[in-house]
Amino acid sequence: MSDAVVLDREDVLADKRALFSLPPNTVYLDGNSLGALPTACKQAAQAVVEHQWGDDLITSWNKHQWIDLPSRVGDKIGRLIGAKAGQVVCCDTISTNLFKVLSAAIKMSPERKTIATTKDNFPTDIYMAEGLLSLLGDEYKIQFIDENDVASQLHDDIAVLMLTQVNFRSGRKQDITAVTAAAHEKGILTLWDLAHSAGAFAVHLDEANADFAVGCTYKYLNGGPGSPAFVYVAERHQARYQQPLSGWMGHSSPFSFSHEYTPHDSVKRNLCGTPGVIGMQVLDAALSVFDNTDMALVEDKSAKLQAYFLAKLEAHGLAETFTLASPAAAERGSQLAFSHPEAYAICQAWIDKGVIADFRAPDILRVGFAPLYLRFVDIEHAVNELALIVNNKTYLQSQYQVVNDVT
Amino acid sequence: MSDAVVLDREDVLADKRALFSLPPNTVYLDGNSLGALPTACKQAAQAVVEHQWGDDLITSWNKHQWIDLPSRVGDKIGRLIGAKAGQVVCCDTISTNLFKVLSAAIKMSPERKTIATTKDNFPTDIYMAEGLLSLLGDEYKIQFIDENDVASQLHDDIAVLMLTQVNFRSGRKQDITAVTAAAHEKGILTLWDLAHSAGAFAVHLDEANADFAVGCTYKYLNGGPGSPAFVYVAERHQARYQQPLSGWMGHSSPFSFSHEYTPHDSVKRNLCGTPGVIGMQVLDAALSVFDNTDMALVEDKSAKLQAYFLAKLEAHGLAETFTLASPAAAERGSQLAFSHPEAYAICQAWIDKGVIADFRAPDILRVGFAPLYLRFVDIEHAVNELALIVNNKTYLQSQYQVVNDVT
Repeated sequence: MSDAVVLDREDVLADKRALFSLPPNTVYLDGNSLGALPTACKQAAQAVVEHQWGDDLITSWNKHQWIDLPSRVGDKIGRLIGAKAGQVVCCDTISTNLFKVLSAAIKMSPERKTIATTKDNFPTDIYMAEGLLSLLGDEYKIQFIDENDVASQLHDDIAVLMLTQVNFRSGRKQDITAVTAAAHEKGILTLWDLAHSAGAFAVHLDEANADFAVGCTYKYLNGGPGSPAFVYVAERHQARYQQPLSGWMGHSSPFSFSHEYTPHDSVKRNLCGTPGVIGMQVLDAALSVFDNTDMALVEDKSAKLQAYFLAKLEAHGLAETFTLASPAAAERGSQLAFSHPEAYAICQAWIDKGVIADFRAPDILRVGFAPLYLRFVDIEHAVNELALIVNNKTYLQSQYQVVNDVT
Repeated sequence: MSDAVVLDREDVLADKRALFSLPPNTVYLDGNSLGALPTACKQAAQAVVEHQWGDDLITSWNKHQWIDLPSRVGDKIGRLIGAKAGQVVCCDTISTNLFKVLSAAIKMSPERKTIATTKDNFPTDIYMAEGLLSLLGDEYKIQFIDENDVASQLHDDIAVLMLTQVNFRSGRKQDITAVTAAAHEKGILTLWDLAHSAGAFAVHLDEANADFAVGCTYKYLNGGPGSPAFVYVAERHQARYQQPLSGWMGHSSPFSFSHEYTPHDSVKRNLCGTPGVIGMQVLDAALSVFDNTDMALVEDKSAKLQAYFLAKLEAHGLAETFTLASPAAAERGSQLAFSHPEAYAICQAWIDKGVIADFRAPDILRVGFAPLYLRFVDIEHAVNELALIVNNKTYLQSQYQVVNDVT
């Protein structure tokens, strides 16, 4: 019996895999880009389209509580990121939600004019901050700080510190509690992008005294392609929080059709347009795989899967072929990044063998570990295939060198 | 044989009804709020969830061209609103898209500081303009103009004229060609909200020389609850158009993960976050009911359905009970609005009899005419039921007086 089989037998989360519909003969190491399909989503998609929309039509807004979806789903997400009820809503995209929070937060410290972030933040986070600055005028600016030592670079002109907790390329993970405390000492509000955190490991926003957070739901939360995002506003900030994408769904009483915008007296003031009901119902079903799941166990399994991957790589003599671009276990999220000059072609060859990972420019092979549906035997198989590709130089074949639109 | 049966036999669009899945014993007069379910959407929802997401996972971005959905669906919508290819993308919500266009348009006339709109525009349109102004500073303002005589109120400080073509309450329809010409004479850019236009009647954006437009797809385009919206930017403006919700999907090369935001060289620069793939695939299928459909015929049928409704109302002696709050046929969209002090309760009683319309505060009974699935016999039945409710005062029963969250 292989060590992988033993580890799978000891896995307290092993039963979760049965809740997913996974394609045969595939090891999916890209759940950090698009999570796999929870089986419950099939029924949910059919129910919302055929029954709720088809049969009950407009009456579903009340009958099936479509109008409450953003809060209901938001609170479910909140439970997975350490936020008590009433602080998270599900809506729009992570980019749009970043814009809302940045706008609101920067107005909460009117004497401060700087948004601080890291140069290697996910590009859209930086683009959205730049977009906001294009409206605010020249006195506002972005300051780029080194992700390796955030606390020492904070100063009194920073209004908002916008950080992605887990670097999308390297997997480096920030300590939300420590960084938030350092920011608060300087009077700085914190905005955490949890794209690579939510659903992957334990996050404790309330405990960390975090101010704001956003995240997507199509990665470790398995909400489906382009599923709606979320936004967290700590309760203590909600009354002062005013965001400019002030659409009717964030109104205190949308169906009064009032001429005056009066924001809802809660985190719901983040809502803007009509919620994407079909996507949100599918997401709601997807979140059910986390019912009664201790996120500490999810985090623990992720660490074990990663350690096992690295051990197998070493056993194949490949630890030096692939340069680990991720930090040590305690300082990374649920992914491993390896730099290799042929990372793109190797990734394509691996996919061809049924092992799906992804490539991130310029030279990163990115391996994601979604603890709810990955087994240790999957990791063993994946590394075996990788070793064959490298040892046989399969990746040099021309079909693996063609670059797709989406990597 | 009733006159309704004769009219249905003469209806050149009669076959379209078979493309929809409609609940039995229901007359649906609320397609102007949420369109009915095109049968093709059922299969599309299942395919995108079970096959594309479930089986092909992340590879679907290339394999099933998810990455091209916003343009592909946008061009399909473009054909229904008189826009040649390359000027429409499908994305986000109408509210968010209004914000993008207003931001871009107001920067295109830097010496002008006013957004003009009508007081009775749909509230979210006004709220979004106010939200933008909260970022831009005190020199910018909104000017409210009278919707009955737009042209005479235009002046040289107006940067953008933002109008909803069809008033959501009264159904009053603006003449896009005439108003755009009047605006251009004063150097004003036009932004048309086509929420109650697209799919209901013929719109000719290119011919009218319109500058910008937005619209939703869940009304007469039948895209499903909260389906993604669209935005039109006339080709001549695209190079100068810069909008601040500058997320990675609007980048010229999103997967280069560049530090610099370089907008896509097209209307795609309106894209922001990751597209909601499930909702957009369902919408794509929904639009197929318009294949080979002449929008002039759709418009013609709408006019006939409305005329028939009014004739039946008069035949029942109810023409004075319900005060028509809509203008004459030539000046209205695809709906009729009636004011009545008991409009809310009458609407609830009507729904209880299987005739679904809606109420808009303060006292409007709103009747929408979706020409692709409504028959003249449906209208005959609906007015018969309305007459019974009014003559028997059924609406005074207590259960019809309870106000729901969503009207």
